[in-house]
Amino acid sequence: MFVLGIDPGLTTTGYAVVRNGEIAALGVIRTSKEDPVPVRLAEIRKDLAGLINEFNPSVMAIEQVFVNRNLQTATSVVRASGAAMIAAADAGIPVVEYSPSAVKSAVAGYGRAPKEQVQKMVAARMGLSESPSPPDAADAVAIALCHLQQQTIRSLR
Amino acid sequence: MFVLGIDPGLTTTGYAVVRNGEIAALGVIRTSKEDPVPVRLAEIRKDLAGLINEFNPSVMAIEQVFVNRNLQTATSVVRASGAAMIAAADAGIPVVEYSPSAVKSAVAGYGRAPKEQVQKMVAARMGLSESPSPPDAADAVAIALCHLQQQTIRSLR
Repeated sequence: MFVLGIDPGLTTTGYAVVRNGEIAALGVIRTSKEDPVPVRLAEIRKDLAGLINEFNPSVMAIEQVFVNRNLQTATSVVRASGAAMIAAADAGIPVVEYSPSAVKSAVAGYGRAPKEQVQKMVAARMGLSESPSPPDAADAVAIALCHLQQQTIRSLR
Repeated sequence: MFVLGIDPGLTTTGYAVVRNGEIAALGVIRTSKEDPVPVRLAEIRKDLAGLINEFNPSVMAIEQVFVNRNLQTATSVVRASGAAMIAAADAGIPVVEYSPSAVKSAVAGYGRAPKEQVQKMVAARMGLSESPSPPDAADAVAIALCHLQQQTIRSLR
């Protein structure tokens, strides 16, 4: 079972296609700040649709956006996240959202673990000598691992 | 020149296809609260893609989302707005955002005009005996009229 992990962002969306112990694909979708927002959102949706078509994941796991004080940034991330969700729904796959602290807990055992520690744990969990690069792609692996862990917990109940 | 006016919302998105003095189409896209958000966003995009394909508007005018205290509602509207933007970008048409006060100013001559007054003015401007229904569709007409007025102002400069 492949999980498509998504770390959404308007400028950079990290993605990772992961199953237990294996990363099938990972990378980032970058969009240009010079393009209009609608064009950038359409690119994110289209690129993820291609990825879903290629790897046929059974679920999309995506980082939940917290709208806090920086509303401008939050708006961009909410929009990018929505574009990713549309790609999933168009392909008929479910979307599960995980909060940043749930992802950190799952991967590093502590909801407030620093970013570097999460990335080291991602490398360790996947048997890699160093953390996947760029960081947004590593974050996407962490989100996918969080979902796989939740699945394991549920299956043991 | 047709303008596609959009009053975005996750539950109800109002739309209107308008040119000077004529409404070619208007209505609302409703999505079910029982469906997952990704499915609802995908529906909004798909329905608007169909509408764009049918009427071939040259521009999408959409109400700008203001993120204020009700962050939950704002998140839903931002997502719905993003879904509409993707439909426009996929069809290669530009998107122009107008603030609620710009729309009120354009249609009712006053940025803080009450909703009822805006809707009466929409009816008067379009030569209708009563305001278009439902209200989200009337709001979409107002947004389209705002864009048409801006175009006229620009052409006179």
